[in-house]
Amino acid sequence: PDRHAVPLAERLALTREPFPASTKVYLEGSRPDLRVPLREVLLTNGERVHLYDTSGPYTDPNATIDVRRGLPALRAPWLDSRADTEFYTGRIRQALDDGGKDDARLAQLRAEAAALQRIPRRARAGGNHTGNVTQMHYARRGIVTPEMEYVALRENGRREWMAQYQRDAGRERRLAGNPLGAALPKGPITPEFVREEVARGRAIIPANINHPEVEPMAIGRNFLVKINANIGNSAVTSSIEEEVDKLAWAIRWGADNVMDLSTGRNIHTTRDWIVRNSPVPIGTVPIYQALEKVGGVAEDLTWAIFRDTLIEQAEQGVDYFTIHAGLRLPFIHLTADRMTGIVSRGGSIMAKWCIAHHQESFLYTHFEEICEIMKAYDVSFSLGDGLRPGCAADANDEAQFAELRTLGELTQLAWKHDVQTMIEGPGHVPMHLVQANMDEQLQHCHEAPFYTLGPLTIDIAPGYDHIASAIGAAMIGWMGTAMLCYVTPKEHLGLPDREDVKQGIIAYKIAAHAADVAKGHPGARARDDALSKARFEFRWTDQFNLGLDPDTAREFHDETLPKDASKVA
Amino acid sequence: PDRHAVPLAERLALTREPFPASTKVYLEGSRPDLRVPLREVLLTNGERVHLYDTSGPYTDPNATIDVRRGLPALRAPWLDSRADTEFYTGRIRQALDDGGKDDARLAQLRAEAAALQRIPRRARAGGNHTGNVTQMHYARRGIVTPEMEYVALRENGRREWMAQYQRDAGRERRLAGNPLGAALPKGPITPEFVREEVARGRAIIPANINHPEVEPMAIGRNFLVKINANIGNSAVTSSIEEEVDKLAWAIRWGADNVMDLSTGRNIHTTRDWIVRNSPVPIGTVPIYQALEKVGGVAEDLTWAIFRDTLIEQAEQGVDYFTIHAGLRLPFIHLTADRMTGIVSRGGSIMAKWCIAHHQESFLYTHFEEICEIMKAYDVSFSLGDGLRPGCAADANDEAQFAELRTLGELTQLAWKHDVQTMIEGPGHVPMHLVQANMDEQLQHCHEAPFYTLGPLTIDIAPGYDHIASAIGAAMIGWMGTAMLCYVTPKEHLGLPDREDVKQGIIAYKIAAHAADVAKGHPGARARDDALSKARFEFRWTDQFNLGLDPDTAREFHDETLPKDASKVA
Repeated sequence: PDRHAVPLAERLALTREPFPASTKVYLEGSRPDLRVPLREVLLTNGERVHLYDTSGPYTDPNATIDVRRGLPALRAPWLDSRADTEFYTGRIRQALDDGGKDDARLAQLRAEAAALQRIPRRARAGGNHTGNVTQMHYARRGIVTPEMEYVALRENGRREWMAQYQRDAGRERRLAGNPLGAALPKGPITPEFVREEVARGRAIIPANINHPEVEPMAIGRNFLVKINANIGNSAVTSSIEEEVDKLAWAIRWGADNVMDLSTGRNIHTTRDWIVRNSPVPIGTVPIYQALEKVGGVAEDLTWAIFRDTLIEQAEQGVDYFTIHAGLRLPFIHLTADRMTGIVSRGGSIMAKWCIAHHQESFLYTHFEEICEIMKAYDVSFSLGDGLRPGCAADANDEAQFAELRTLGELTQLAWKHDVQTMIEGPGHVPMHLVQANMDEQLQHCHEAPFYTLGPLTIDIAPGYDHIASAIGAAMIGWMGTAMLCYVTPKEHLGLPDREDVKQGIIAYKIAAHAADVAKGHPGARARDDALSKARFEFRWTDQFNLGLDPDTAREFHDETLPKDASKVA
Repeated sequence: PDRHAVPLAERLALTREPFPASTKVYLEGSRPDLRVPLREVLLTNGERVHLYDTSGPYTDPNATIDVRRGLPALRAPWLDSRADTEFYTGRIRQALDDGGKDDARLAQLRAEAAALQRIPRRARAGGNHTGNVTQMHYARRGIVTPEMEYVALRENGRREWMAQYQRDAGRERRLAGNPLGAALPKGPITPEFVREEVARGRAIIPANINHPEVEPMAIGRNFLVKINANIGNSAVTSSIEEEVDKLAWAIRWGADNVMDLSTGRNIHTTRDWIVRNSPVPIGTVPIYQALEKVGGVAEDLTWAIFRDTLIEQAEQGVDYFTIHAGLRLPFIHLTADRMTGIVSRGGSIMAKWCIAHHQESFLYTHFEEICEIMKAYDVSFSLGDGLRPGCAADANDEAQFAELRTLGELTQLAWKHDVQTMIEGPGHVPMHLVQANMDEQLQHCHEAPFYTLGPLTIDIAPGYDHIASAIGAAMIGWMGTAMLCYVTPKEHLGLPDREDVKQGIIAYKIAAHAADVAKGHPGARARDDALSKARFEFRWTDQFNLGLDPDTAREFHDETLPKDASKVA
């Protein structure tokens, strides 16, 4: 049923092709193993434009990638040199982790993941050790980590090429951004600035110590606006190549983070495949796997099973967990008069549990125990919005805001443990109610990064919800949201295929970039200027290559009419 | 090169198919010949939802349409009963009107248009007659025309079905729109309200007396936000069926207005085909045709040729003319330091003329003579933004705003003649500079309706500019823009094909609806609510049929997985 079915071998080749006229170059940091990748685009007039690059080694023709062995552990020396972690015998993998019996199929899948198994690390405790290895913990103690330096270099990129586009002082004044309260540094971002932002909780660097393959990145209002793409396992799990390709495809088009929302069988092993091969942070919703372990019966969930799942995933290297701990028992009745009730899957599971037991959510009551786990691995919280509106009619209601205020309380608790935290937001919000979402979040969640799904501004566009939501995403990004969770054209209708994933990502790159430009992020506009100049000078190839999707731009141009018919509008 | 090539017969059938579960119904006005079409959607639970319908007779299986004869002249009795127009021997058609020699091909095309020729009307002058037949002229004299009544009925639609979605007072308060200065009536729109809006110039009803086939509609800040789609002739003009099908396809998906931007040969005859078969107002840029008449040499344009072209097109029934009369000689040098100079085609033509002759634009110096023509046929002005920015870097510069202020002066002149007027706007504007565009327009153009192209919020999305611009369009629509000119995915790259036109229109229906919802247009949200309720109740068919594009929603759903996997977010 994939309308855009392409044979696997061809797909893999496409995913790994370098972008046209592009090469991977590196910024060198203060230590030889700190090298930040950029994409360099060579224009036909000799100019070189440098772009933020999320695609990892996959677009580097010099990289040797064996998905059965995983990417290089570039952070391993940094972790080693901090000397505050220990290797230990991790949790014993069970058949139930993959949702089924120890059968031949599972044995085969696990065999494919054999060389991806790692001995887990955790924070050392006792003696001089604090049992805490979060970036926030270091930041608050004044330590600038290599991860922070990496982020600073990455956010700055190389700006030399921008100078020619920024030398008209009148234009710079006319186009000066409106940061709407963001505190963007005027000059280059320093590692110290990153440290400060992480220390005060205004940014996070999702980087589990068991995910040393990650190329560190920051999510925070004073950095570039980021986007997240969701992927999931196939109903019939095919092969490691196929599952990793989904990830590589998403980051090729610009996903800064990927959430693995796999359900059903084989999800532990699929996660091994993904995490070990991912240069971007991976997020999950652990309650999904916990639910599989109890046969899909929400009422049978227990704190013990959930806790065990957190450790399982923390040992594998998941960088952030969506945890719906703000959905409290007393809030559930607030959804009674809603048009579409509770639409968050995690929210529905927990609401069912709370009602069945008539008890407060175990996520809420055990929250500090969760923090203890998070800080031992540096897993970040993505505090879930289980009561987010499922349609415009339910936007900004008391259920939603009661949960949001609770997420603010929990943020304070997480910060007590120096656990990095971001806050999830809606969902479905008409344009005129978007600002209130940002205001409430800033007020109650103390500037912890906001991470919103869309929001969708209207409900009458099934098949086009990537567009209906890109409008809301661009606006809330400008207002201060740090990361935008994409929506694909298949939203509400079915599971996205490869082309849908790309369409969703491009729509969200547009929204994120529009937000960066409006905020006045230093240098954000230079790429637009370079493309506009190429357009004006009829350098078609440069126009294509500077765009978000060179292939489509070239294809659209080639299939149509005279070259100079297009210079209108 | 059309990626979505479909044989003509199949295309024609698709274009005219009624929407699923939909029938055309009519609101009856105060006279038997005043019947306003609506689309009635029958839901699976027996509910009937009524939607604004731009598609004219094309989606009515009971309508007999012969594109070689044209649509019924529904306004003819209204025009007759006003008794202020006269039939006269119009301008003699010349071969040059179709850009070429009197050859066999032209003879054949004209033969196909033979039964579309009409004796033109113009305003009677002398005696009791004012020589002015504009809707504004009537409105200012206190006359409520059938066109105004039609518009009132159409804007209201049938609202009975909405009641169930509006009875939760708390929800209505929570979602109450923010009109940002619009003066939306709380109750139903009355014909008198329409008259007042037209009288003060805050709305226009584009309805040339030589376009009696038009189903009247209003463009104004206090009405539903409208969208315009551009179409153009094929490089190799194929057939009347093919050209009319482009129009029918655009209005099927919701274009409220269509601009015919045809160039090259056969444009007079193509226009006959289009206007005679169009139930929506048709706009043109007459300078395009005038330029063809002088062999494409801008310097050779004269007031006489331009004037003759205006009369030619007014007699054919064009409802509004884009006229770039605000691009004055002294403003041209203001574009010298721009990144992309002058990108408006009409603007470039006039700038070239002004520079070559070192004279003030003849559009500006002859503006009141143009008004004389406009008022004799009720052609509306769409005062063109020849100096609109062609990229974000040029947004909101002095060239753009100097022209905008001039358009404000010209609006006053047009209004002196009771000529209906709207103002064109950009173009390319980053999000944070959008509000200033609306503010300047409102201040300098005295609330004449604003008609913007996008604006595109960023420049790095070639192939996806319908999305980059839908963001700006939704925002400026909320702020008060009355009509949004669509942008297709092919913008900047080439000529849109059938699928591109549809994609552009859907993106702009999303933007316009998002704006209506944010403004709090009465009843705008009810369709969202009906769809959300259907979604919550798993009435899939209703969810598809209430969407902007039922076909795509159904296709996306059918090609994928289990039905209840989709109820997330």
